[in-house]
Amino acid sequence: MPENTAGNTPENTPKTTSAAPTDVSVLGLGLMGSALAATLLSAGHRLTVWNRTAAKTGPLTAQGALPAASPAEAVAASPLVIVCLSTNDNVTEALAGLDLTGKTLVNLTNGTPEQARSISGWATKAGAAYVDGGIMAVPQMIGSPAAYVLYSGDEEAYEAHRPTLAAFGGTRWVGTEPGRAALHDLALLTGMYGMFLGVAQAFALIRSESVPATEFAGPLQEWITAMLGAVPDLATAIDTEQHLTDVSNLAMNREVLPNFTDTFRAQGVDPGFFLLLAPLLDRAVEEGHGADGLSRLVMMLKQ
Amino acid sequence: MPENTAGNTPENTPKTTSAAPTDVSVLGLGLMGSALAATLLSAGHRLTVWNRTAAKTGPLTAQGALPAASPAEAVAASPLVIVCLSTNDNVTEALAGLDLTGKTLVNLTNGTPEQARSISGWATKAGAAYVDGGIMAVPQMIGSPAAYVLYSGDEEAYEAHRPTLAAFGGTRWVGTEPGRAALHDLALLTGMYGMFLGVAQAFALIRSESVPATEFAGPLQEWITAMLGAVPDLATAIDTEQHLTDVSNLAMNREVLPNFTDTFRAQGVDPGFFLLLAPLLDRAVEEGHGADGLSRLVMMLKQ
Ligand SMILES: NC(=O)c1ccc[n+]([C@@H]2O[C@H](COP(=O)([O-])OP(=O)(O)OC[C@H]3O[C@@H](n4cnc5c(N)ncnc54)[C@H](OP(=O)(O)O)[C@@H]3O)[C@@H](O)[C@H]2O)c1
Ligand SMILES: NC(=O)c1ccc[n+]([C@@H]2O[C@H](COP(=O)([O-])OP(=O)(O)OC[C@H]3O[C@@H](n4cnc5c(N)ncnc54)[C@H](OP(=O)(O)O)[C@@H]3O)[C@@H](O)[C@H]2O)c1
Repeated sequence: MPENTAGNTPENTPKTTSAAPTDVSVLGLGLMGSALAATLLSAGHRLTVWNRTAAKTGPLTAQGALPAASPAEAVAASPLVIVCLSTNDNVTEALAGLDLTGKTLVNLTNGTPEQARSISGWATKAGAAYVDGGIMAVPQMIGSPAAYVLYSGDEEAYEAHRPTLAAFGGTRWVGTEPGRAALHDLALLTGMYGMFLGVAQAFALIRSESVPATEFAGPLQEWITAMLGAVPDLATAIDTEQHLTDVSNLAMNREVLPNFTDTFRAQGVDPGFFLLLAPLLDRAVEEGHGADGLSRLVMMLKQ
Repeated sequence: MPENTAGNTPENTPKTTSAAPTDVSVLGLGLMGSALAATLLSAGHRLTVWNRTAAKTGPLTAQGALPAASPAEAVAASPLVIVCLSTNDNVTEALAGLDLTGKTLVNLTNGTPEQARSISGWATKAGAAYVDGGIMAVPQMIGSPAAYVLYSGDEEAYEAHRPTLAAFGGTRWVGTEPGRAALHDLALLTGMYGMFLGVAQAFALIRSESVPATEFAGPLQEWITAMLGAVPDLATAIDTEQHLTDVSNLAMNREVLPNFTDTFRAQGVDPGFFLLLAPLLDRAVEEGHGADGLSRLVMMLKQ
């Protein structure tokens, strides 16, 4: 491993020392892998690329990347191997039986903590230092300050390659337990999916009266952003287990819930998550938590 | 009706003319009604208040409000009558049989468009000009620039009393159809509930590995805020019915969905809305919409 990759650089600062940048291999040139590879090329790395469908290497080899005919060839070419396939099953399949001695394997495929732990165990046995990552960005954001990647696993290997990884955007270390980055990733995406589901149902409802979505978008974005201001207090309530609230308690929320289900039905729109929220609020009130705030629901979701 | 209340003032600007401010009655002194009443007192209005449980008038009469012994007395006292009870059933019950000749009734109770139309019909027959409103704020925000209220119904009455109503925060007119404010209100709150459900599930997941909620709150709030940036493009896709996307299509989202349900189950946390999202994404792909973005789901929710 070249010694010039050791040490820390600030977040979002691509490596700009005069020493030669680390050689890197990227396996997987889908939308995300291609964005990662292009960013590494721009940062001046000698880049080797592999993709199952070889045609997708074209745009990158045209910019100077070296094509590898197999995962084995790609792994052999560089000390730092970055893999970004659809699923971790694809990763296990693509890397099966390979010798990873002395390599750092950074897996940026979306997966579960369990999968990350399993691949980490396998990769370590195959001789690699394993780092798991969760990309908090869409491909179009890669390389911009708005993007960041969560990392967990082998901390020494992470620190050694952080200057290279910083080309993608911010770097956020979340711990040595290899599944931890996936846990944070899935939890952040859970918040996002809930928001998008709410937004989709909100648009479906307002459109049922032919209000243009573009007219409603500004107020909707503004309102949800304002309500997100409650998240820090919610976190404090969870950590301190002080669930009583003087803002908007579960009993009050339960009382207005039929307004939503009735209106969705009257407008011919699927009431979606309200059908889940209603029994949850019923149970909260039955169990004597009516005066508590939303933080109580977090406790109730734990089974 | 005193003539000095006519005309527009800018949003969020309480009335500050030298003429005497309109007399106002507030029916309902729960958390929200009390906040509305206190704000009107501060703005210098002669205020009459009624609450079913008379004891709650105490803090306001101590500040100069006049107590009314019944809804009829409260209605008789002022040309502008603001009502804010738990539900519209309570409103119908409290106002039943009253003469509203020459009054403007502003109903700020959370309800459905259908209820607003029904109360509007009744109030108009009883002699009132009816304005329905949806409060986009918690009681603690009333009177601050962050709060606003959606209004629909009798536009002339609304314009006449807007200087008074502006004491609560911004005023947003959404149309003469009396149910329109309730529709906007419920749609905005739908977006908020989805977000909060996502946030609650995210906290439940991260807490399952004993990560403090307070440590996770900042990244969670930041990530959802960033993803809310997609809302305007989503609105354009809905209005133009151009659902194809090059960012994150439904087929890709469907492929990673088991990562969420598996992880929630492995961590002993309720997978909640993912159990709704999974069949919705399955159906989207089956119906040939795999290459479309989230905007397609909005169409699918319409039944
Ligand atoms: N796109 C985003 O917005 C986004 C954001 C954050 C994280 N991610 C994650 O990044 C990863 C890649 O996403 P993407 O957007 O690049 O997806 P994509 O455009 O669908 O690309 C999928 C990649 O996986 C490869 N692949 C699939 N099955 C394979 C197999 N059995 N063996 C070998 N290779 C296989 C594909 O190769 P072929 O070209 O041969 O099909 C392609 O390179 C996913 O885990 C995704 O969740 C994506
Ligand atoms: N709190 C918020 O964050 C918030 C935000 C936006 C909108 N809102 C809406 O504002 C409205 C009032 O909410 P709130 O926070 O003030 O609720 P609250 O604190 O629970 O107060 C409820 C009010 O309704 C009265 N009431 C209930 N049943 C009644 C009946 N049968 N007859 C007469 N009065 C009755 C109560 O009188 P008693 O004192 O006699 O019980 C009290 O004045 C609701 O529609 C709510 O959805 C609230």
